Formats: sequence, structure tokens, C-alpha cells
Amino acid sequence: MSLLPKSLADVIEALGTMPGVGPRTAERYAYFLLKADKHKSQKIADTLAGLHGGTKYCPKTFALINSDEEMSPLYADPARDKTIVAIVADPFDVIALEKTGQYSGTYHVLGGLISPIDGITPDSLHMPELLERVRRDKVAEIILATSASVEGESTALYISKQLEHTKISITRLARGLPIGLDLEYADQITLARALSGRQAV
Amino acid sequence: MSLLPKSLADVIEALGTMPGVGPRTAERYAYFLLKADKHKSQKIADTLAGLHGGTKYCPKTFALINSDEEMSPLYADPARDKTIVAIVADPFDVIALEKTGQYSGTYHVLGGLISPIDGITPDSLHMPELLERVRRDKVAEIILATSASVEGESTALYISKQLEHTKISITRLARGLPIGLDLEYADQITLARALSGRQAV
Repeated sequence: MSLLPKSLADVIEALGTMPGVGPRTAERYAYFLLKADKHKSQKIADTLAGLHGGTKYCPKTFALINSDEEMSPLYADPARDKTIVAIVADPFDVIALEKTGQYSGTYHVLGGLISPIDGITPDSLHMPELLERVRRDKVAEIILATSASVEGESTALYISKQLEHTKISITRLARGLPIGLDLEYADQITLARALSGRQAV
Repeated sequence: MSLLPKSLADVIEALGTMPGVGPRTAERYAYFLLKADKHKSQKIADTLAGLHGGTKYCPKTFALINSDEEMSPLYADPARDKTIVAIVADPFDVIALEKTGQYSGTYHVLGGLISPIDGITPDSLHMPELLERVRRDKVAEIILATSASVEGESTALYISKQLEHTKISITRLARGLPIGLDLEYADQITLARALSGRQAV
């Protein structure tokens, strides 16, 4: 005898397929939605049903765009400098960098970082399209804006190797102390990087 | 200029209405679903759309049941002792108690605990139906199976007051040391309860 109604058990099972959502969290979400107004779960259902149909990848930058757009509005914007390309792992990294308000170049979204254990090899990271852009847009600077993880570093290394025969200036985001972190709480690698990358005042 | 496709932003906003899901978590869920196979988000959408329609409350016990069922299969089961009623706050508490395999009575699901700050008053806790069951099923024992929180305790107190003029035996779940907890880590109230509720060996 099942103790839960089938439709509730189905929701719990389906929500449990999301990352980091265990059975208890899924139960909590499902029960909340069941107790809440019907329109709330219907709203989520409607938006999810439209998720894939409403989005596609920009064929130039691989940023996520509305499916009725031809290319990333950021790339199409004539005010953005196409000769500077920041290489990021995923679409949300674009948003993070845009929030700084300090960058006027364009982006190239890899769609992941090299991670053989997760089956992400260099071939799946839109490298041919990057090399094509480099050639066509006369790219002068590539900013390796990958995170400071093992995968981020090895992806950055791989990309810089791919471009070493070109005259493009290759830079990467500075490593160092994050703002607000007490020096005594910084880990050794971060501190070592901050030291080796010290700048004249 | 919006940096995210509308359909993705819609999913993030909709998922963010669930409890404990902030913007970052909603982004993580949405991006995972977008990268995953389309069928995964469609599956969640379908189950959510069917959530409210597929469930209803048992008119006797207020447990959640399939909408095509007349009453809780657990209550309808002739093997369950209808003269013993465990009072629980929500439907998942029924599952937790059933997993013990130690209970053969029936349940009454309050649908919450008295909490004026959340707008949950005694009137919303199916008390009239409980009193009706007490009369009709000749209930001999009420087990107050609410949690050991302020709300759980005050709800238990309220229910026992409601029944004090009857001859029903009113019990509540034992308070004491949970299995696996080192005595030195137990909080004072738990330990005080364990002491006052000590049992002969």
C-alpha cells in the first residue's frame, strides 16, 4: 500500500532529479507546492515546459539567447569591442562579469570546463568556433576568465596552448585575495598567488 | 538589455518561489535542467501540472490520498485499530510513523500546528472532525504525535484540553535521548525530559 498519493510521489521523484535535491528536500518542495495555491505549481510547470523551446545558443558566442534571436545581443551590439574576447565556462559567468560594469569586450561561452571524469573533453568546448572568431574578428586579446579550480586552470592552459602560435595577447583574471577576506583566513594557494602576483602601488 | 533568455529567467523566477530556494539555487536548478535532456524538465512540468488534480484530503483522517479514492486506504483497512488515533501535524508524519512498523492504529492529520504568527489557529486544524471520529469510532486512545517544538507542544496541550471531559486515554510520544546521541551533546531540555520520563529497567 502506497502511503502517498501517486501524483505527489511523482512530483517528489521528478524534483529529486535536480542537483542537490535529496528525497527530503523534494518532499519539502512538493508538500509546499501542494499546500500552496494551485497556480504556483502550474506556473512552475508552464515555465519548465517552455524552457528548452524558448532558449538556444548564440552561434557565435554560445551564450544563451531567446530562440527568436539570431545572435547574442551583446555580441551584436556595435558598442562592444569584438577584438577582446573573455572566455567563460557557462552563461551565468557572463552575467557575473557584466555586473562589474567594467568590461566592454565580448564573450565566448565554453559550455563547461575540461573534466575527463565528467566526460567533458576539449572537443565539446566550442574551440573551432573560437579559432574562427579569432580569425574573422581580428581578436587582439583573449581573457581567460575561467574559475581558479583544477578544471578552470587546465581549460585555461589548454586554450592558451591552442593560441600560442598566434600573436594574440592572452591574459587571465588575476588570482589573489578576495575582497573582505582576512589574510589569516586565506588558503595557502590563494596567498601564494597573491604574493607572486603582487603589484606596484 | 536582458542578459538571460526570457524562458530561462522565467524558470529561475518560478523555482525561486519554493521554500529555501534563493536566486542562486534557482539559477543552478534552471541551468541544470536547460543543459539536461528536454524530457527531464518536461517530466517535472507534467508531474507538477498534475499535482493538485491528483490528490485530495481524506474526509475522515485528512491524510493525502489519490483523488479517485474515497478515503485513506490506511483508515479503510479493517486490520487497523480505529479506536487508537495518532494525531500528527502533516501527511509525511504518517509515513515516518508507518516506517517504524510498530503502529497498527489510525491517524488524524491536523494539516499544521497551532502557530498564530503563521495564521494557523485551532479552527484550521480539523478539530470538529476529530471529535466526530472520537464519538463515532469509539476511540479509546489518542496519541499526541506532534513534534517537540513550541508549536507541537501547544497544539498537543490544546487537543488534550479539548478531550479532558472524555474518558479517552490521552498519551503522547516519549521525549528523551534520541538514539545515537551522546549524552554530553544533548540539550538541557531534552535531558530534563529524559530524566523526568525515566523508566524502570
